[in-house]
Amino acid sequence: MKYITHLLAAIIIMTTASLSHAQKKDGKVLRHVVLFKFKDSSSAEEVKKVEIAFAALKGKISLINDFEWGKNSSPEGLNQGLTHCFFATFASDKDRDAYLIHPDHKAFVEILKPHLDKVTVIDYWTEK
Amino acid sequence: MKYITHLLAAIIIMTTASLSHAQKKDGKVLRHVVLFKFKDSSSAEEVKKVEIAFAALKGKISLINDFEWGKNSSPEGLNQGLTHCFFATFASDKDRDAYLIHPDHKAFVEILKPHLDKVTVIDYWTEK
Repeated sequence: MKYITHLLAAIIIMTTASLSHAQKKDGKVLRHVVLFKFKDSSSAEEVKKVEIAFAALKGKISLINDFEWGKNSSPEGLNQGLTHCFFATFASDKDRDAYLIHPDHKAFVEILKPHLDKVTVIDYWTEK
Repeated sequence: MKYITHLLAAIIIMTTASLSHAQKKDGKVLRHVVLFKFKDSSSAEEVKKVEIAFAALKGKISLINDFEWGKNSSPEGLNQGLTHCFFATFASDKDRDAYLIHPDHKAFVEILKPHLDKVTVIDYWTEK
């Protein structure tokens, strides 16, 4: 009987975890899409420093719920010179606003600035 | 004993499902980020038709693993006139390539074309 109780408890915990994941996935979240073109004069090492500094914000600013990034690999040639995409997720526009003025974000912008040639930013609420 | 066997089977199934989800999340996926600016001459109704036609591709082309879209709500003013973001996920560049030449995608492009003013496309592999 003790076994069954433990097993039932395990099932309840796993089902609850699974449901809360589904609710989070189905709910609306705010995406923050940031595209960069770096200056031709910026070295690969300098660009790498910017990549690392941006990615490090996820560990510094708890407002960021999810973060990923990568370099353009589209064969379509429609990237308009932009080479990098950074993709952050926030729970609300309040969180996004607080992120934008966060000291760690501002410090990152100072690292980025000398190397930034072009930037495009779009935020959107997912409508799945 | 039969109960315990059933419960254990249920736990194994749920654990397997949970692990396969984690593997998928941890593994690399190819993101396809598409930004549009529509022509000023295009009506709200015409833009809506493009939005619906793009979103409908998810149900038509099984190569698309995930799809979401939304209208720009960034307060930064760095959207370069682009107003819409469509965000598709593929398992591989082969799937993305097959999507690009898929008849249903080509049919969508014909619906889009008359209303498209500016476009930016970046694909990237997530490096989480």
